[in-house]
Order: sequence, then C-alpha cells, then structure tokens
Amino acid sequence: MATLDPGIGEKFSRRTKRAINHDGSFNVRRRGGPHRFDAYQWLVQMDWGPFIGVVVLFFGVLNAVFAAIYLLLGLENLPGVTTPRGAWQDFLSALFFSIQTFTSVGYGHVYPGSNGAGLVSSLEALVGVLTFALATGLLYGRFSRPTARIHFSNTAIISRRPDGTPSLQFRIANQRSNILIDLQARVLVKTIEPGTSNQKYAFLPLERDAVSFFPLSWTIVHDITPESPLYGYGPEDYQAQDVEIIIQLKGYDDTFAQDVHARNSYTHEEIEWHRRFIRAYEVDDDGIAVIDLDQLHRTEPLED
Amino acid sequence: MATLDPGIGEKFSRRTKRAINHDGSFNVRRRGGPHRFDAYQWLVQMDWGPFIGVVVLFFGVLNAVFAAIYLLLGLENLPGVTTPRGAWQDFLSALFFSIQTFTSVGYGHVYPGSNGAGLVSSLEALVGVLTFALATGLLYGRFSRPTARIHFSNTAIISRRPDGTPSLQFRIANQRSNILIDLQARVLVKTIEPGTSNQKYAFLPLERDAVSFFPLSWTIVHDITPESPLYGYGPEDYQAQDVEIIIQLKGYDDTFAQDVHARNSYTHEEIEWHRRFIRAYEVDDDGIAVIDLDQLHRTEPLED
Amino acid sequence: MATLDPGIGEKFSRRTKRAINHDGSFNVRRRGGPHRFDAYQWLVQMDWGPFIGVVVLFFGVLNAVFAAIYLLLGLENLPGVTTPRGAWQDFLSALFFSIQTFTSVGYGHVYPGSNGAGLVSSLEALVGVLTFALATGLLYGRFSRPTARIHFSNTAIISRRPDGTPSLQFRIANQRSNILIDLQARVLVKTIEPGTSNQKYAFLPLERDAVSFFPLSWTIVHDITPESPLYGYGPEDYQAQDVEIIIQLKGYDDTFAQDVHARNSYTHEEIEWHRRFIRAYEVDDDGIAVIDLDQLHRTEPLED
Amino acid sequence: MATLDPGIGEKFSRRTKRAINHDGSFNVRRRGGPHRFDAYQWLVQMDWGPFIGVVVLFFGVLNAVFAAIYLLLGLENLPGVTTPRGAWQDFLSALFFSIQTFTSVGYGHVYPGSNGAGLVSSLEALVGVLTFALATGLLYGRFSRPTARIHFSNTAIISRRPDGTPSLQFRIANQRSNILIDLQARVLVKTIEPGTSNQKYAFLPLERDAVSFFPLSWTIVHDITPESPLYGYGPEDYQAQDVEIIIQLKGYDDTFAQDVHARNSYTHEEIEWHRRFIRAYEVDDDGIAVIDLDQLHRTEPLED
Repeated sequence: MATLDPGIGEKFSRRTKRAINHDGSFNVRRRGGPHRFDAYQWLVQMDWGPFIGVVVLFFGVLNAVFAAIYLLLGLENLPGVTTPRGAWQDFLSALFFSIQTFTSVGYGHVYPGSNGAGLVSSLEALVGVLTFALATGLLYGRFSRPTARIHFSNTAIISRRPDGTPSLQFRIANQRSNILIDLQARVLVKTIEPGTSNQKYAFLPLERDAVSFFPLSWTIVHDITPESPLYGYGPEDYQAQDVEIIIQLKGYDDTFAQDVHARNSYTHEEIEWHRRFIRAYEVDDDGIAVIDLDQLHRTEPLED
Repeated sequence: MATLDPGIGEKFSRRTKRAINHDGSFNVRRRGGPHRFDAYQWLVQMDWGPFIGVVVLFFGVLNAVFAAIYLLLGLENLPGVTTPRGAWQDFLSALFFSIQTFTSVGYGHVYPGSNGAGLVSSLEALVGVLTFALATGLLYGRFSRPTARIHFSNTAIISRRPDGTPSLQFRIANQRSNILIDLQARVLVKTIEPGTSNQKYAFLPLERDAVSFFPLSWTIVHDITPESPLYGYGPEDYQAQDVEIIIQLKGYDDTFAQDVHARNSYTHEEIEWHRRFIRAYEVDDDGIAVIDLDQLHRTEPLED
Repeated sequence: MATLDPGIGEKFSRRTKRAINHDGSFNVRRRGGPHRFDAYQWLVQMDWGPFIGVVVLFFGVLNAVFAAIYLLLGLENLPGVTTPRGAWQDFLSALFFSIQTFTSVGYGHVYPGSNGAGLVSSLEALVGVLTFALATGLLYGRFSRPTARIHFSNTAIISRRPDGTPSLQFRIANQRSNILIDLQARVLVKTIEPGTSNQKYAFLPLERDAVSFFPLSWTIVHDITPESPLYGYGPEDYQAQDVEIIIQLKGYDDTFAQDVHARNSYTHEEIEWHRRFIRAYEVDDDGIAVIDLDQLHRTEPLED
Repeated sequence: MATLDPGIGEKFSRRTKRAINHDGSFNVRRRGGPHRFDAYQWLVQMDWGPFIGVVVLFFGVLNAVFAAIYLLLGLENLPGVTTPRGAWQDFLSALFFSIQTFTSVGYGHVYPGSNGAGLVSSLEALVGVLTFALATGLLYGRFSRPTARIHFSNTAIISRRPDGTPSLQFRIANQRSNILIDLQARVLVKTIEPGTSNQKYAFLPLERDAVSFFPLSWTIVHDITPESPLYGYGPEDYQAQDVEIIIQLKGYDDTFAQDVHARNSYTHEEIEWHRRFIRAYEVDDDGIAVIDLDQLHRTEPLED
C-alpha cells in the first residue's frame, strides 16, 4: 500500500484521535516557543454572539476606566454635572460624559472645564475614533472572509456500481446560493499499521475529481477496484485499521472572488455499508432544479 | 458523443430550463437543510436602488425605535425639548434627538438629563458608530468586488470559414475600460438525449481558447469538423436536442488585481444560421482603434 | 513567421499607433453600447492631486447645497445664528452649520430649532456619515491596490553575446523596496505585413523567462538565432515593418500578498543598435549590493 | 554543477553578505532613480510600537498646528474660552478646541464665533474625518495582511538516513494556529566560485517538496546522493565556498484565504554536522498531538 504523509505525521507514540474534525480543524495543540496569539484572527473567526459580547465588554470597561479617571480628577472639572449626589450618581455622570466623548457625540451640556479634563477627554476622543476605526476593519474582516459552506452527507457509504464494482461514496452540496467554480476534490485514506500506532496514508482515485460548476449536489465516488488501497476490506478491517477518509475541497467562489477550501473526514464509524444515496433534487413545474438539503443524507439499502 | 457532466446534473425527471441565464446565474433553488442566508452577500450584490432603500429604511426604523424609547421614558428626561406640544411633535423631538445621537452629531441643545436617558443615549451612540462601521465595510465590499462586465453578442451564429468549414461563433467585448489579461474561454454544449430528459455535455474545441490581452473584441470560434459533437446537425436537430451552448470565461483584471469570471449561454433559439459578424472596430485618424459596442451584435448573411 | 494574435487584433483598415504605451495602457477607445463608467475605479486610479480636488469639490458643493436649503427654510429655524447681517454672512452661517452637521462635529451653538431644520439636518447627518464611510473605502482602495512599479530601461538594445550571437535585450528594476517573487516575463514582437496595415505577432523565446526573486535588476535577453522571427533584420527592416516589442510581466508581491502585472513596449525608434548595458549595481563595504536606478538606462557601444 | 541564478545575481565585484536574512529580507539597497517611497506600505509593515508613536505624533502635531492658527486668529474668535490667562493656557484652550473639532466631538462650550474661525474649524473637521478614514484603512491593512509565521529550526543539520545516505535537514513549524494548505518548499544552495566573488546556484531536490496540510512540524530533507551539488563536501568546503542554503516556502492560508510566502537561509556557520533532530511532538491522554515549539531546535549527536 503506497504511503504518503500529507503532513499530518506518520510516527506516533500512541493512537491519536481522528485527524480532521467535521469543522475542518485538526486535533493538534501548540506549546512553548514564540507562539503567536493573533487577536485579529481570533476576533474575526469567533461566532457573532461572543463577538458582540467582547465588543460590549471592551466598550464598557474602557469607558468605566475613563469615568474613574474623571472621578479622580474631581467632577468640578466637568461643568454641567449637577452638584454631587453620591458616589454611584457621580460615577454615572462621569460614565455618560465618557461615552459621549468616546463616541464623539459630545452634546456639550457637560464639558471639560479644566486642563486636566481637557487633556483626558482629548485622549479619550482619539482612543474612541481609533477604536471605531478598528471595529470597522474587524467587521469588514468578519464579513468579507470567504468561507465555503459545504454541506457533507452525515455518512459515507459503501455502495455498488451497476457493473457490480463496489465503491466508496459521499455527497456534498452548497449551503449557500453563491456559485463555486472548478471545485476540486482530493480524498485520501488514513490507516493504522496493525499492532502499532503508526499512520499510513494513500490517495483514493476518484471517478471524477473536479466539476466546473457546483449548483446542486455532487456525489464523490471512489471505485474499490483491485488497485484501491481499500480493496477487499470488510467492516472489521476498517475498524482494526482505524480507517479515516480525509477529504480536501478547493474551488473558486464567484461572489467572494477568491478561492475557498473545505476539509472533512469520515471515520470508520461514519461509514454505512451496502447502501445507496437517494436523489436529492427534482425539477419543479417551472423547469427549475430544486435541491433538498435535508435529503442529502438519505440513503437506502441496496437490493441484492 | 463524449459526455462529461460539468456539475450541472445528468439525470432529470423532466426537462429543465436553460442551465445558465444571461446574467450567469443557474436555474436552481435550494430547500431545507441548514441553508445559510448571507446578509452581507445579499447587501453587497443587490442593485444600488434597493440598497439605498434598505439603508434608509434601517436608519429610519432604528431611530424611530429609539425615539419611542425616549418617549416612554418621558420627554422631561431630555432637557431642551420645548414644552410638550402634542404626540406628533413630541415624537419628532425625540426622533431628532435620536438621530443626533445615532450619527454622533450631538448638538447638545437637547441632551440626556437623567440616568435613564443617559443610558439609552449611550447605547444608541454605540449602536450608531458600529452601524456606520458596518456601512463602511458594506460600501467598500460593494465597490471593491471584482466583476467582469463582459458584453456578449446577442446571438451565436453558424458561419463558414474561408475554406468552407462551418463554424459556431459568438463575440465578446469588455464593457469597461479596465484591461483583462490572459482571458480564457471554455465552451461546452448541453444536449438532451432524444426521448428522455437526460442531459449530455461535451466540450467544444476552440480555434483559440485564450488571449493575452482583451482591449477590443474577441470572436470565439468552434470549427464544426467531423470530430465536433455538432457535426452534421441542422436547426431542427438543435431544437430536438434542446441544444444549449455554455460559456465560461476567466481572466485577470488588472485594476481589481484579481481573477474575474463570467458565464453565459446560448440556447438553440439564440443561434442564427448562415451569418457572419460585421467588424466592430475601426482605426481613427489618430491611429487609435475604436470599438463600437453597439456593433458587437451586427451580423450579415453569408453570400453563397 | 508564426503568428498568434495576443488579443490586440490582426486586421486593421489603416496603421495603428503603438499597441501598448509606456504606462501599460492600450491605444483603444470604446463607443456606444452599455459601456460602464466605473466611478469607484476612476477615483481609485486617479492621481492624488486630482483626487483631493474631487474630494474638496464634492465636500464644498454638497455643503453649499445644504446651506442653500437652510437659507430657503429661513435662518430663524437655526437658533444661535446672530441676527441676519446680509446675504453673504447668512450664507456663511448656514454653511458653517451645514459643515458642522455633515462632519458630525455639532458644536450646538447653532442648532435646528424647527421641524424643517430638524429633518434636513437629520438627513444631512446621515449623508455625512455615509459619505465618510465611502471615503474610507476609497482611501483604502487607493492604498491597498497592488501595482508593480517596475522600472524599464528607456531603450531596448541589440547587443551581442560572447559567442557572437546577436541578442535583443532590455533591463528592468524594482522601484520599490518590496520583494517580487517568481517574476515571469513574456515577450512578443508585433510587425506589420509589408504593404498592408495588418499586424502579425510572434513570441520571442528568452534566455530565462522567470526569476525566483527580484531584488536587483534583471536583464531580459532574446537571442536572435536563425529560429528567431527577428533573424537577419536590420534597422531598416525594423522601421519598414513597424516593429514593436511587447512585454508582459507577472509576479507575486510579497507585501501586498497578491499577484501584480506590468506591461510595456519598445517601438523600433526605442531600440539602440550595437550597444551593451553597463552594470547597474555594486557591492558596498558592508557587503550589501547597491543598485543605482539611474544607471539602469546606461549603455555603451560594443567594441568591435 | 548546474547553475541557475534565481534573480539574486551572479557576478559581483566582491563578496556579498548572506543573500537572505532570517526575516526574509534581502541585503540590497536602492539608490537614485524614481525610487518610490510607499508611505502606506511603510505604515502597514512597521511594528506596533513605532506605529502608535507615528499616529500619536501625527495627531499631536496636526492639532498643534491648528491650535496655532486659532491663536493667530485670536481667541476672541472662540467664544466660551475664558478670558486670556497667559500664552500657555491660551494655547491649551486652542488645542482642546482643535482636538474637539478634529475628532468631531464638538462639545460646543467653545465654538467658532467668527467667519475666520468658522472656516478653519470647517476645514479641520474635514481633515479630521478624512484622517480617521485613512487610519481605518491603515489599521485594516495592518491586520488583514497575510503573513506566514513559520518557525525555522535555528540550524540546519547534516544527518544520516537509516540506509547510510547523508542528508541535509532542517525543520519548520507553524507559530500560529491557522492551517496552511499545500505548503511547498523550494531549496537552493548558493556557493562562491573559489578564488572569485562570483556566485553559483543549484536547486536541491527534496525527499518531499510539498505537504497537503501543515498542522505540526515538517522536516525538510535533501539527500546528499552522488547527484547532489553538495556531494562529498566537508565542513571546510562549506566554509571555503561560503555555502548558503536558501529556502522559499509557499502555501495557502486558510484563515486569510490567501497565499502566503516565507523565506529563510542557513549560512555554513548555521549548519551542524553529524546530528539528528529529536521528535518535537507527542500524543497526550486525549489523543491530541501536541507540538512543542521549543523542541523544534533540539538535535542530538548521531550514534556512530
């Protein structure tokens, strides 16, 4: 069986988890060294909920700090604030002034009435506009990042061609209505050398490894011919060798005008035997092909 | 006839509309599943009229909501508003204050005079600056999206070469004054298997499938030699087999500094027989080649 | 002589100017049809002087229009403006208020005191922030557009190799300190068929058609062997056939992280005969190679 | 020994420093000519410390200039400034007003009370918003610039394969947790022709010149077979010929969605003889591969 490490590693001291998770990430951790934490990437890739939380928290904390500075200077530096009415109310008054400065609203019913307040509020105004400049870039970065939202069938199947050849199949569809062009697939299989935790890799030749367009669904097929590294394997071999089917997709996204990539894998537990896919699209009365993404996973047993 | 599904699908339960519309879209609909609605892409790709409508509507509704909140708090929280003069005038006063906060103008003749108003206006100021940060990204996204504005002749023609070989031809020109580099064309034909609604595809070899530059027009020619999948077909064959000529173009845009793509198709109804194209450019007195985009579609009958 | 139209056109009714100008543009004009004027591209590609002029003009005109509207409404709608003191002073007062609204400064010593003024100023504030959102995108678009600033020698030369083979040479250097990677050159020659105005093209094979890095200068060399389309030509042939050497360069810019392209051409008037280039770089005391861009054009006669 | 100048230059009047520094830069200087200073690139590529310094300096100087103009006009043009109290206090008052205008805070307790002040403050407000538009683009440009943070082992080693073949090896790891796809390596060796300062180049064939993924580390290996340009060389040959191993890496960054490049080199002083690398990753209890970046450099002597 030909082997070619795709960069995931061959020799391990013990068994590893699946190489690639369903979200395309690797089961790898970094330690020591000059590891870079990239705040921009972290903020661009996090989900919207946490992102809004970070923004609000950052906005709140920064303004609370500036409010505290105004309090330390003394509220008499901020004419327009009504006479002190207790610590909490004073803090709120300073906080509101801070926010009005930070966002550059600057109503002016409260204003900096001393050099100290003038200096701090000048600094805060600068920090404010630069913060929103940053936020602009972050929001644009979040939106404009091209990501392929490719929907994979939940399982791969071992099916059979009309001529009797067994084949490994899985199916993909585009979750978004953008068009992917020249979509290419590369599939390889990872196995464990029996009795060791060493990993071997082999490419699986595909019936068709690229499509010009990808408007509907695409069933990716590897014929298990005698040349296939999976030839003659039964379910127990898949389990014994910890088989993992690794998929790499690459295409050009016509709306983002950039190449996009997707990765996924099927472990031996995610392979159904002796099944076939049910067609996931039909033609409606207007002659429009309609794909049903819920049907993407639907398989049925092969008749014998 | 060689067949190669370019990803559009081969087996259909009934006849479909043309595969590709003149704007490059596919006649496909998505249903069910985790279909992603991508607000950013929707806003970036919509026309300018609707886009401005969405912006104004969003701005209006959001400020009306904040105005309603100020009204609920009571206008006595907004010193500077002249004594209440009826519900409509009160709403307008609250709306103007809201807009002055949202856009961070903050004249200050009206200002938040209570903790409640201070809090709401602080929040609104934050929402406002973030909204405009978003708008910045959207506008940039709209403008910087590279799109090839390639103008196709309205019809393809069946013409004849000087040596008598019949050929399928169509003509393209660049609507914009930017330069496309290394423009590549790929043309295929979709036919219906007679008596079924199954589709077959075949690539059409071209006289020249790429040009280094694209300043003028380009006549794309497929010679209908005995090897051509269209050899010997007459107009009635084109109709019976529901012929559709599918075109995919790809080039590098020198001003956007990115690859751009274009798609189009001609159905059998959009093919003119026994015609030839009239030259669409001439050289003016300064030695400048002038292309007339209106002439791009002009054909004349072949003399026999 | 092999011919291959690179997309510039072969058959012309009369002689055309050079195909490519020194700035990489083509001598082509567009007429009629749905020609797209692309305001964004126009603003992104114009020089800085005119660009700033357009910005200031736009800012001035838009604010003058809004000032006129405030005047039409009546300055009594803008409390804080001191009693009317003549048309010019009134206009200036309205203009300053307009600018304070447009830029969202909003000092508030003048403020909208009626529904009419409230509405117009709300609209202006929205237009203002959206305008600056647009300006942000334009400025970023101007700066982030990758352009290769490749400096070409003023002339190409006909030189001679040590073994006596004549060769066509020209020299390029990078004007910027960014690094170009995998820079590729493609050179072709355009000739006129004697007695006609038809154009022929042929690629010129190069001694080396790519370099991995481009930190210094690169002398691009075409050996005029018997296989060369220029073999045996003298200066009078170059003139009679209106020879133009067309150059296309492509590389990856390491700082913009994008491919960049450059074009240029030498007409027969820009070719020096029987010269060679003088080396344009030396090594200083620190072992640093120093390239002198002024020397790029320096040639000397060949000794015979 | 085959030679192929990768664009670094072959003929030099004296010895040069290493071709490529550890940060990927070249030891080249530019002089004369229309050399372009690219302010945007300078600001985008500088470190964060100096960048913030430039921003603060720019903000300070510009506002000081505007403050000076307001002082020249006379503070009586800025109603709200309390009666003059000495030059320093006057300057501060003008400076605070300037900053409030520049950042479009515009509290309004100080406001332009004459045509002169109105004009200058209008201009300053425009300059201010455009400056922050610029800053937005700069910040986005800094963050969104894809850069490969590839960590190279401090030294290359001359090791030995199980079958006894000597080999040149070095090791790389990804400092960031982003995924690089289809990472390609190209390695060449630069030598000095003995007795001259002329440089020769040769590509070094690699055991494997690309990996599909790059989650862990990658040991890049050149077998020193009889075909290798380094065959038979000992440490003294490396020194005499001033050997430099030049590495060029290229891959697709899945988070930036763009190609990234990296360069590095090892001089003969950075090559360790007769060593081998110690494995830098292990599998933890969860089956996760853990790479220790500190171990990347760890080598041990070969047992003989």
